[in-house]
Amino acid sequence: MTIYKAPHEEQFFILEHLLGLDHFKSMPRYADLSDDLIESVLTETAKLFENIWHPLNQKADMSGGCKLTADGVKVPEDFHAAHKAYVDGGWIALAMDPAYGGQGLPETLAFSMLEQAVSANTSLCGFYGCKSAATTILTHGNAEQKATYVENLATGQWGGTMCLTEPHCGSDLGLLRTRAEPQGNGTYKITGQKIFITGGDHDLTDNIIHLVLARLPDAPPGVKGISLFIVPKIMADGSRNSLSCTAVEKKMGLTASATCAMEFEAAIGFLLGAEHRGLNAMFTMINESRLSVSMQAYALAEIATQNAVAYAHDRLQGRYIGGARDEGAVADPIIVHPDVQRLLILNRAYIEAARAAIYWSVMQMDISRHHPDDETRRAAEDILSFMTPVLKGYLTEEGFEATSRALQCFGGHGYIRDTGVEQFLRDTRITMIYEGTTGIQALDLLGRKMKFYPAFLKYLKDFTDGSDFPDDLRAYRDALKSAIEVMEQARAIVMALASDNPHAYAGVSVYFLRIVALLTMGYFWGLMVQAAMQSKDSRFGEDFRARKKLTADAYFALVMPEIHALHHKIKAGANSFPDLRSVFA
Amino acid sequence: MTIYKAPHEEQFFILEHLLGLDHFKSMPRYADLSDDLIESVLTETAKLFENIWHPLNQKADMSGGCKLTADGVKVPEDFHAAHKAYVDGGWIALAMDPAYGGQGLPETLAFSMLEQAVSANTSLCGFYGCKSAATTILTHGNAEQKATYVENLATGQWGGTMCLTEPHCGSDLGLLRTRAEPQGNGTYKITGQKIFITGGDHDLTDNIIHLVLARLPDAPPGVKGISLFIVPKIMADGSRNSLSCTAVEKKMGLTASATCAMEFEAAIGFLLGAEHRGLNAMFTMINESRLSVSMQAYALAEIATQNAVAYAHDRLQGRYIGGARDEGAVADPIIVHPDVQRLLILNRAYIEAARAAIYWSVMQMDISRHHPDDETRRAAEDILSFMTPVLKGYLTEEGFEATSRALQCFGGHGYIRDTGVEQFLRDTRITMIYEGTTGIQALDLLGRKMKFYPAFLKYLKDFTDGSDFPDDLRAYRDALKSAIEVMEQARAIVMALASDNPHAYAGVSVYFLRIVALLTMGYFWGLMVQAAMQSKDSRFGEDFRARKKLTADAYFALVMPEIHALHHKIKAGANSFPDLRSVFA
Repeated sequence: MTIYKAPHEEQFFILEHLLGLDHFKSMPRYADLSDDLIESVLTETAKLFENIWHPLNQKADMSGGCKLTADGVKVPEDFHAAHKAYVDGGWIALAMDPAYGGQGLPETLAFSMLEQAVSANTSLCGFYGCKSAATTILTHGNAEQKATYVENLATGQWGGTMCLTEPHCGSDLGLLRTRAEPQGNGTYKITGQKIFITGGDHDLTDNIIHLVLARLPDAPPGVKGISLFIVPKIMADGSRNSLSCTAVEKKMGLTASATCAMEFEAAIGFLLGAEHRGLNAMFTMINESRLSVSMQAYALAEIATQNAVAYAHDRLQGRYIGGARDEGAVADPIIVHPDVQRLLILNRAYIEAARAAIYWSVMQMDISRHHPDDETRRAAEDILSFMTPVLKGYLTEEGFEATSRALQCFGGHGYIRDTGVEQFLRDTRITMIYEGTTGIQALDLLGRKMKFYPAFLKYLKDFTDGSDFPDDLRAYRDALKSAIEVMEQARAIVMALASDNPHAYAGVSVYFLRIVALLTMGYFWGLMVQAAMQSKDSRFGEDFRARKKLTADAYFALVMPEIHALHHKIKAGANSFPDLRSVFA
Repeated sequence: MTIYKAPHEEQFFILEHLLGLDHFKSMPRYADLSDDLIESVLTETAKLFENIWHPLNQKADMSGGCKLTADGVKVPEDFHAAHKAYVDGGWIALAMDPAYGGQGLPETLAFSMLEQAVSANTSLCGFYGCKSAATTILTHGNAEQKATYVENLATGQWGGTMCLTEPHCGSDLGLLRTRAEPQGNGTYKITGQKIFITGGDHDLTDNIIHLVLARLPDAPPGVKGISLFIVPKIMADGSRNSLSCTAVEKKMGLTASATCAMEFEAAIGFLLGAEHRGLNAMFTMINESRLSVSMQAYALAEIATQNAVAYAHDRLQGRYIGGARDEGAVADPIIVHPDVQRLLILNRAYIEAARAAIYWSVMQMDISRHHPDDETRRAAEDILSFMTPVLKGYLTEEGFEATSRALQCFGGHGYIRDTGVEQFLRDTRITMIYEGTTGIQALDLLGRKMKFYPAFLKYLKDFTDGSDFPDDLRAYRDALKSAIEVMEQARAIVMALASDNPHAYAGVSVYFLRIVALLTMGYFWGLMVQAAMQSKDSRFGEDFRARKKLTADAYFALVMPEIHALHHKIKAGANSFPDLRSVFA
């Protein structure tokens, strides 16, 4: 049996002290936001996720998850009550426009809540694609479409999916084959197969609205000929549309989320947005989805680590290398062993900076959408655009490592399914893949996002060049300064390769992404210690500051040095990353 | 459906060219060994493992593995035929003394065969603890025990287990509670619970011989009071001994191997070896078991990579960054993409050096047991003793990474159980734990094995100081030379910590182990390229040499640089690795 406790102290610290309310209050939409409101929301949602969602997590995994029946997909029975509690609480629409049933709160707060949901029960979160569908229709739909779909989706009355992938086409959406035939009456008939559709069918809601990418008959080839369609499972007249789930995939993890193969057989659909502009409409959601997957990675590491820490206090094994800690006991708890502490502090160093980086990035998303000043909105969008592939690429890979380190603390017991920690590792593995693999993120960073690199660098330098550096921060500033030099050298090498040697350029791209990510994490560690030092809030007093400093120290001592290896790899790869097909012939 | 093809080319190259027959022929026991014999054995065994064992691997995993019934543990039905083919071929006893039904061939050859078995079906391998039991009884048993048990175990007529772990006691065997009461007639009654007993019960053989660690009534506390007992499932008179399997664990991976909880209730046992010397007797097998687990890690990476390479040739997605490779097709196969090549070459760089290091180490085991010269035997034992924790610690962690990289090549399809590759990742995860976690290996290296470090260093220097360095080798020699300097600096720091700061010493121990391992892998890459250059064998001609060089280049460019990060971490950790319990209070 696993445990989960929402990390309120960390959440409140970041929202209220690292980010601070001023940023939100500069947007009229969020003028009423207060610390009290943040805390009451996250305290209330924690009850739901800790007490109702989490106890179902392992049980659903062990029971084999969703079943495909003649009557469609059935979720594990007790998911229904969990779903009802989530919908009835009004939580799904936390950040939605009040005109559509939402509470109009910042997306940053919604992400903080979702982090709890993911930690508590990641598979169940897979049924809430409705939120993305609502936002996409709100952004690109006409008045009638908005009136028909947005509120029902935003509040979770209806399910929603995004149907992109096909059997032969994942990262390369240009290969998409699903067809849309105009019927002359404003509707289209959609025909094709889609796979890996999360929540493609289930019995939690009466209706499911699919947003489907397909090609019109006159569509140009490639990604420029893709349109987006609204395809409901149940039509307005109550009839069933001609689409069905043909399989629920058995997966390594997230076993209780319904990953569906869908068949559309001349299903009725409605064009969403402009013809041939479907990918653009879908990409409205790309930053949000990628940040959401990055959050999933550290949220799973969070719960895995909570369980590992608890186990490390309980399990007696061996004696402390500095002398027995508890003479009376037969052995010391393994939390005393330096290597166990190393595994756990690496996890904390990852999770806490990841959370800060994600909340900060989602706040940029809020600003990019709602700030009254054009320039501020654009600057927020630029830095968000830069951070997204960096965080998606790094946080997901490191989240997988972190859940693996948590498992390691359990020894052989970690490998046993009853213990529960191995599920977190299996659940995390997909984050490195969906919404774009790490390799795809690295190409996105280098190929499309480097124009925002100067803005990123300015954030770092504004911190390292700050005039007021107490001793507690000096070491971090110095470490960041020399890391910036390494990053700059690596950037120069990589940028030169772009034209000279595209093969080597793409070959070392992931290493460059990792350097940028390590600087990002270091930057947030610096900011966190600074914020902890400046806080007058008694909840974040001496003990809290000491803990933050020890964890920041561990980050700079045991994690940041990876940049040296990455720099060497980029230098070596620049000289020697030939086409290796002959090795695999 | 997964594929497996025994890597004969690599196996023959290492056995015949990297190691060479001379080393084996210096031992009278192996005077008749020939290349032909090696090849005929490994060709014959490949047929068994490729055609009979491998097709059962995924099926057994999907079907949920072994079942505990009122009549004991039942293996998946088709394991019986696979077992019979293995036993009938006489393969289990390949390296056993001919006096006990064996073929008297080198353990190195047996490991080469076992590598194939593990790649083909790791779970099924879990039923052959009989081999270790046979060797332990052969080494420590009296004449009657040898006559009764060794041949039956060595040939696989009977199963065998090693019963160490108890619910509260794993790494710290001093906590062991199972009791042994002398009956005054030369027998003992054994009472206690054991867990994680691989192959603890099953229906592949009529009898199973358990080697059980237990305490005599007058035993001193701790590890010095542990004795070893032979406890058969079925007694000589055909009656059942009072022991039973009480549970088969559900595990993350190796789902079709029977990991049993065993209850001994006054079961009749026979003392094996001297009283209170049980741990020593069990430790006879420790190097072999740890090398075997290390081999398991790279053998799983091997099959995972074979499948990833095949998929990367088939799957069309995107265009090559250097221009379309196949203008006529809708997209290029993903093998052209530099990041996919990076994932795969990292795996090859790991697997091939791992195989070389393991075969070489097992050859040292053969030499340590059978060489006529005392000094040679001892030197082989010393270097084996040093290499064992290094390889166990590094190869298992890297094997997990490698299976994860293989999965990554499949994108979303890798996460689907039908694809089969995720099973390899799940199966590999345990290697970092059983037979001692990575942290335990690092403490073994630093605490007990550094006296053999000079011997290790001499191997490296004999290579780097060699006088005859063609251009092809010079870069590797130079890289190794500067890596040796880094390792020496790291060693000096770590050794100073041993007395000054035991906490930090243990805290950075894994980093030091990794540095030693990276040098080891680099050394074997150097040796392999050298052997490939020197070989006159037409099978290992220009293409083979070119492939080896490209892979060695990738190792030195993209893997070896990790030593710089590790060196920095050790330096930083030496100054700042405080007791972190307060962070986790």
